[in-house]
Amino acid sequence: MNMSRVKYPLPLKIAGVGRYLPKHIVSSRELEERCGLEPGWCERKQGVRERRWVEDETVSFMAAEAAKEAVANAGMSLADIDLIIGTSQASDQAIPAGSSLVQQELGLGDSGIPCMNITAACLGFIVAMDLSANLLMVGRYRNILILTSEITSFNMDFNNPNVCTLMGDGAAAAVVTRPLPGESSGIHAVHMETYSEAAQASSIYRGPVRNTLFNKNLPSSGMEFDYDPQGIQTAAMKYNQKFLAKLWPMSNKDIIKLIIPNQASRFSIDMMKFVFPADRIMGVIDRYANCGAVGYPLALYEAISRDRIQGGDMVLMQGGGAGFSLVGMVFVY
Amino acid sequence: MNMSRVKYPLPLKIAGVGRYLPKHIVSSRELEERCGLEPGWCERKQGVRERRWVEDETVSFMAAEAAKEAVANAGMSLADIDLIIGTSQASDQAIPAGSSLVQQELGLGDSGIPCMNITAACLGFIVAMDLSANLLMVGRYRNILILTSEITSFNMDFNNPNVCTLMGDGAAAAVVTRPLPGESSGIHAVHMETYSEAAQASSIYRGPVRNTLFNKNLPSSGMEFDYDPQGIQTAAMKYNQKFLAKLWPMSNKDIIKLIIPNQASRFSIDMMKFVFPADRIMGVIDRYANCGAVGYPLALYEAISRDRIQGGDMVLMQGGGAGFSLVGMVFVY
Repeated sequence: MNMSRVKYPLPLKIAGVGRYLPKHIVSSRELEERCGLEPGWCERKQGVRERRWVEDETVSFMAAEAAKEAVANAGMSLADIDLIIGTSQASDQAIPAGSSLVQQELGLGDSGIPCMNITAACLGFIVAMDLSANLLMVGRYRNILILTSEITSFNMDFNNPNVCTLMGDGAAAAVVTRPLPGESSGIHAVHMETYSEAAQASSIYRGPVRNTLFNKNLPSSGMEFDYDPQGIQTAAMKYNQKFLAKLWPMSNKDIIKLIIPNQASRFSIDMMKFVFPADRIMGVIDRYANCGAVGYPLALYEAISRDRIQGGDMVLMQGGGAGFSLVGMVFVY
Repeated sequence: MNMSRVKYPLPLKIAGVGRYLPKHIVSSRELEERCGLEPGWCERKQGVRERRWVEDETVSFMAAEAAKEAVANAGMSLADIDLIIGTSQASDQAIPAGSSLVQQELGLGDSGIPCMNITAACLGFIVAMDLSANLLMVGRYRNILILTSEITSFNMDFNNPNVCTLMGDGAAAAVVTRPLPGESSGIHAVHMETYSEAAQASSIYRGPVRNTLFNKNLPSSGMEFDYDPQGIQTAAMKYNQKFLAKLWPMSNKDIIKLIIPNQASRFSIDMMKFVFPADRIMGVIDRYANCGAVGYPLALYEAISRDRIQGGDMVLMQGGGAGFSLVGMVFVY
């Protein structure tokens, strides 16, 4: 496998961001009581103080709310969007693609705006930005709406505290477009690798097909997220450092203003502290927990809305997730 | 929404194709008996004589078999592939992405070859070709393996003859790459539209999330494919003709050597006969039924292996599917 021969920068500007947070806040204390854990366990072990879990919100509703904010934040209207890419693992139904259901929720049912979904677990947002940059460069599309929305709290197993205390619900979205002449926004590096030797370290067994018919050793019910922290950490320790060096020369790391790691676990954030100063690393897991594909754009949203990055700043988004895949991108906001 | 401003042709050559057909053949006669239908019903109504249904094959196994044939057919080895795009609806499990599981099945677990999935129901293969052409043009990747593999026969409802007689299992794959200097291969038009006003005409309700918790009117069990032929036909009649005219000037339709419609139903193939002569339309539904995303590349495989197209021939792949989405592509093979 060879590195790509892209001529950087690729043209991509984050024109607007949006998010939706479910109204219902679940404190770590509440979960510690429910699961019989000692007080403070969640924050110490997971780095999570609270998370949002849906009550009546659907995946499509949350995505649509985040989309509306992102489009308004971009100074656009929905009619300006010419592609919708969904990147969530969760969907209100398996077919059609979740992005179609969000198009419907947005009242765009007769708009014709093309809808597709891409999936790469927690890493979907970066993959969608990568694909979008190529589409923008070629001129295939001009204003792309990237959606993430996850309900992870569905069917939660309270006998598995490692998982149930770690997961949160929410949505975030971004509108990406070509930078105008004179604007410095663009992607300066992007890279992805997948090592399926660790495919089972982070998995949901029950997909649209697999059940005991195909594998009698699988659990007999539920859509449980099966998460082996040790397996993921082993894969990350084996591959992440090398991956980062391929993505970006570490001699040049000081020009990166903000690092957004995968908001998957305390480990996925802390791992970046081996390479970058802690005050340049963005974490939102303390308030939202692991929201799957929502993590990256949710952290990006806070980085922008809290002025941790300004136009012209260089940002690194990088991390590993189910696959086991590593994705990384260096871009000028 | 405006049409894209792409400078055609986009560089894409189909370097190799492969397929896997499950060993077990289910005749229409057998299903007619099982469902209490009169002899000949399936062929008359669905245009289907027989279909394949898996016994012990998995989604990943079938995809890997098709992938090996496609890579060999391209004169490559697996190490030449630098991106794997899965486009199936079915997967052996929900997380990680199905393409990762196929990477593992291919013995590439430590290869690092990036794996992602895109979903657009039956239309995923064309969407993946579209994305691939952009990635190849920019130089992001060089040899892309596109996978389709579906098990639709899982949990089949024999009280719903409209669906159970229509569906089949199988896999097909293609390797796409940049044409060499002097080669005429390339994409001359590509377009996509989604009209979610018909989102529920072709759907599987039970995704990773939705269940009776969110919608008490949904069926209480199963992953059943809910297919409303009337709804799909209405949407297709409303939009398809206009879509075709946007994709390609109909005054120039005679240079298209072969038309590959969506292999979703007798209707989806017959609809093309309003526009093109029947002898230029490729159908494989009679032997394989509706295999979801596998339909397009399976028909392409037969078109190539039976010499219905040669290098330099112009091909149209076009049709509608769940979303409700329309996708079309005109390319030189």
